[in-house]
Amino acid sequence: MSAATGDGDRWIVPPAEGRAIVVDAGAELAVVDVRGGQVGDLFVFCQDDPAEYLSAGHTRAVVGRLFPHVGEAFVTNRRRPVMTLVADTSPGIHDMLIPACDPERYRLLGVDGWHANCRENLEAAMAALGVDLPLVPQPVNVFMNSPVRDDGSIDLLPSPSRPGDRLVLRAEQPAVLALTSCAQDVVEISTGGLTELAVEVSR
Amino acid sequence: MSAATGDGDRWIVPPAEGRAIVVDAGAELAVVDVRGGQVGDLFVFCQDDPAEYLSAGHTRAVVGRLFPHVGEAFVTNRRRPVMTLVADTSPGIHDMLIPACDPERYRLLGVDGWHANCRENLEAAMAALGVDLPLVPQPVNVFMNSPVRDDGSIDLLPSPSRPGDRLVLRAEQPAVLALTSCAQDVVEISTGGLTELAVEVSR
Repeated sequence: MSAATGDGDRWIVPPAEGRAIVVDAGAELAVVDVRGGQVGDLFVFCQDDPAEYLSAGHTRAVVGRLFPHVGEAFVTNRRRPVMTLVADTSPGIHDMLIPACDPERYRLLGVDGWHANCRENLEAAMAALGVDLPLVPQPVNVFMNSPVRDDGSIDLLPSPSRPGDRLVLRAEQPAVLALTSCAQDVVEISTGGLTELAVEVSR
Repeated sequence: MSAATGDGDRWIVPPAEGRAIVVDAGAELAVVDVRGGQVGDLFVFCQDDPAEYLSAGHTRAVVGRLFPHVGEAFVTNRRRPVMTLVADTSPGIHDMLIPACDPERYRLLGVDGWHANCRENLEAAMAALGVDLPLVPQPVNVFMNSPVRDDGSIDLLPSPSRPGDRLVLRAEQPAVLALTSCAQDVVEISTGGLTELAVEVSR
């Protein structure tokens, strides 16, 4: 099963859209910021049970840090490694604190009417694979710049990633990976307008 | 319905156990660290749909901070206010980054055999109210001292709260509040051994 569109093993996630792909254990996945400065929301679910998913909270607890270092693994809500962070050519600025944007987010920002959003894009991408999500987890917000200040405040700043920057993950379990090219264009977290992301799969 | 045990409107949560209570909109709830230095895991679910719950991630995004200030609200995964933080007599050290302890946590810490844990205590407390939980949310870890360092690392330190310290919340919606007196005694986050917490309800 596959709901992504792409050319061979390179899947394009158009701006403000989402795609999900099925990956085997051992597969390597490069999330590529094609044009630079684009935030993506990454979600991972276990193939045999989507109620087990990449958990930002459990990952923080296991690595003792807001975000894993290269060589460390993201874990599930059962504390099992699900994706190892193999390489990162970007400035290494990513987020696991801020939830996916959703219709309520844009309403609170004063948007009149519907706005594309990562929650609905995730749900649509997973539905295209026949998966009815039991919940929307806290995403791994790749290339997102949200520093925590000494007083506990969290800034939302423009992404510093550059064209072609890549975050490389290795699947530790059979998984479904969903990626949205974040639709947020009211708060400038993506720079230079919304652009596409790519996922390159190899093993 | 009520699964807490207590005297009148004061509910005791014994050490390494959990309790859940049903609260009306407008109720005020004081979470009391009876003997001081005891971490508690607090969860809130909407009465009419437990798939809507207090979300740490959405609260961070709405308040722009790792933890709300007094006067601000915790919100649900639908970004609706569910509990307002009315007062806090403690040193103001709390956590929303670390998940509930669970059997896997103690296995990874080298504990041989079963250990009391907040996930199972939450599930049992909610089951006693007839609620089958769709998920275990990231808790609000009251009185928990887990500072984030400049390099993104998260320390787990002893709780600085004092006997009688209180965090007061006002329910903004009909809710079910679950509180566990955290069972963690391998890593010293609670000081002076595990002790009871109390919840005092008024309106």
